[in-house]
Amino acid sequence: MDYRFASRIAEVKSSAVRDILKLTQGKDMISFAGGLPAEELFPVQAVREAAERVFDAGKGALQYGLTEGYLPLREQLCVRMAQKGMNVDPDEIILTTGSQQAISLLVQVLTEPGDVILVEKPTYLACLQVFELYGLRVIAAESDEHGIIPEDAERLIREHKPKMLYAVPTFGNPTGNVWSLERRQQLLDLCVRNGIPILEDDPYGEIKFDETADYPTLFSLDQQQQGGAVIYTSTFSKTVAPALRTGWAIGNAKVIRMMAKAKQAADIHSSTMDQQILSQLLAHFPLDDHIQTIRRSYRDRMVEMQSLLLEQKIEGFSWIEPKGGMFIWTQLPEGLDAEVLLKAAVLKGVAFVPGSSFYAYDPQRNTARLNFTHNTGQKTVQGVERLADAIREFTARS
Amino acid sequence: MDYRFASRIAEVKSSAVRDILKLTQGKDMISFAGGLPAEELFPVQAVREAAERVFDAGKGALQYGLTEGYLPLREQLCVRMAQKGMNVDPDEIILTTGSQQAISLLVQVLTEPGDVILVEKPTYLACLQVFELYGLRVIAAESDEHGIIPEDAERLIREHKPKMLYAVPTFGNPTGNVWSLERRQQLLDLCVRNGIPILEDDPYGEIKFDETADYPTLFSLDQQQQGGAVIYTSTFSKTVAPALRTGWAIGNAKVIRMMAKAKQAADIHSSTMDQQILSQLLAHFPLDDHIQTIRRSYRDRMVEMQSLLLEQKIEGFSWIEPKGGMFIWTQLPEGLDAEVLLKAAVLKGVAFVPGSSFYAYDPQRNTARLNFTHNTGQKTVQGVERLADAIREFTARS
Repeated sequence: MDYRFASRIAEVKSSAVRDILKLTQGKDMISFAGGLPAEELFPVQAVREAAERVFDAGKGALQYGLTEGYLPLREQLCVRMAQKGMNVDPDEIILTTGSQQAISLLVQVLTEPGDVILVEKPTYLACLQVFELYGLRVIAAESDEHGIIPEDAERLIREHKPKMLYAVPTFGNPTGNVWSLERRQQLLDLCVRNGIPILEDDPYGEIKFDETADYPTLFSLDQQQQGGAVIYTSTFSKTVAPALRTGWAIGNAKVIRMMAKAKQAADIHSSTMDQQILSQLLAHFPLDDHIQTIRRSYRDRMVEMQSLLLEQKIEGFSWIEPKGGMFIWTQLPEGLDAEVLLKAAVLKGVAFVPGSSFYAYDPQRNTARLNFTHNTGQKTVQGVERLADAIREFTARS
Repeated sequence: MDYRFASRIAEVKSSAVRDILKLTQGKDMISFAGGLPAEELFPVQAVREAAERVFDAGKGALQYGLTEGYLPLREQLCVRMAQKGMNVDPDEIILTTGSQQAISLLVQVLTEPGDVILVEKPTYLACLQVFELYGLRVIAAESDEHGIIPEDAERLIREHKPKMLYAVPTFGNPTGNVWSLERRQQLLDLCVRNGIPILEDDPYGEIKFDETADYPTLFSLDQQQQGGAVIYTSTFSKTVAPALRTGWAIGNAKVIRMMAKAKQAADIHSSTMDQQILSQLLAHFPLDDHIQTIRRSYRDRMVEMQSLLLEQKIEGFSWIEPKGGMFIWTQLPEGLDAEVLLKAAVLKGVAFVPGSSFYAYDPQRNTARLNFTHNTGQKTVQGVERLADAIREFTARS
């Protein structure tokens, strides 16, 4: 049969980068590309014990569940969210298959094909795919290390009347930027004034290197005022483990109900096995201590990679030290296209994600995202050397 | 903030039936409504041991996985599918969050809003929701106990040029009908001739009461010819347990690749914890013996419910004995609207799904779907008595 595919899917670009990264599966390849957490830190024993408690609870644990997700876990999340100044009831929360699904459901619920969505420039790669699939027109506001530049956002809002703002205010992906409190308040006010809901994506918020730092979420700031403009999403993928594939969204109960309606069609519900394991884990495992371990270990890895990069003394190769998250966002020497560099780097046995992947349009081509959480020791040393060799090949030539 | 919702979701009808069924959570309520498998048959010990093997395998088990799903499980499924005459490679299979997600992904990949989809009359409730969400126009072909009536399907194809046929040829939901071999071949030929892909949904195929019976899938028949017209989907929800939320789709590699593209935006991947548990379970647990246990137990439950219904001797209340699956599809006395009956039944402490829910339009209102797998013994006895009492209230009046 000759299949004709829907334009929504046929038009989603097959990523050249993904094709290159497929070549990185080899044994000797060192990858700074993926956003993979450190496996050696996964709390396997705690997850195992949590699973045993689920099985002990009896056969009912294996039955169908609610579309909104396992109620005890939603209740536990309400307590955790409240500790961060986000006060919600269980009917204002929905559990999802990772926070990716929360993004996808909210887009289905709040936008029509042809609508405009406002993002930061650059922004998270996989959200761009969702926007493309649902036929949205993406406009990107300039940002600096303190977050989106309000004046640019305001101009774009005036010109394009976006339906929604998508933002990662704390440890942005790819930049690692943290929005300043002032910018948070400015952007929130701007959106509230213009009736634009905000999707606040916060996968990395817990991974902060300065443990005393306080980065209030847009959701919590919004709630201190009249509230209701922010839908917030996060995930256990970075704090517990990705295989349990559990994220959540909190927000206005009516929005959550609509997301549940969309989720019913999408998959009825996510794995209740995973949700019950996480619920038992939260009840019996000191997750916050574990998160502290992750923070310290990731900070060490970041510092290590940074000093290795510095040692290479490559002119025009720079970055801002990230305050958290999993990535260093680098500026390559002027004129060096990271997609071209990637091909050379892969031949040398190292991979990364070219920055262009994070732009909806007008990419800054001499940028690259390096993950520092997945490799350690000699691998990081070697990876950085290979990367520096590849860069030098180009800079020496020019 | 005043949220304006997308028309796609605002238009999905809030189901009156679901609202009524929410009242069925009470302790004394006996529900024949849901499609819940029998909890007491869940192989908890085997799932527990499978989970232990996953944890023994090390920390890598908790890492991110492939969008297409855990490769060893896809390979095992290839072997199982081959035993049913369906020969596919791992790149012709994608693992999903239940077969519901397979339906949703295929619709995204093959249809545009406004397209027509052909279904059986009546058909599976939750697929109608997907079609509505993606803006499809549903046309329903008449069916009898041997399946869709080819002449009616042909007429509708001529008139409406559907993009796709959705069908549950073995133990249809709600009817329990099994398409005859002749009808299968006729419908397959009809679709191939007209270039219409078929989504064959087979959640209940394994739950057959005559163990010697052979109901070849449309996929296998199609493959015996030139092939490629059928995308087949099934699930572990009925044979292992719903909480593991794992289904799969097989078909043309290009279609599967497109579904993976849509899935990447939807949730990146499903729970690899669950996929690994199922893989270990298939490797170490005699699943086919377990399926035999389920078949026999469900057949006993069906026979029991049927004889209880017969004992009630209600005139005009009839059904065709199902050959498998989880439901008895009943015809109520002429003129009795099952939605009205449901309200009275719930007051008496018994619930079911009114048949109207399974029709995209022109519902046959005096029909009801009764689940026979979830209750046993006194509960079934009492539930049938309550239902009969409710029916009699109406028939006595008229």
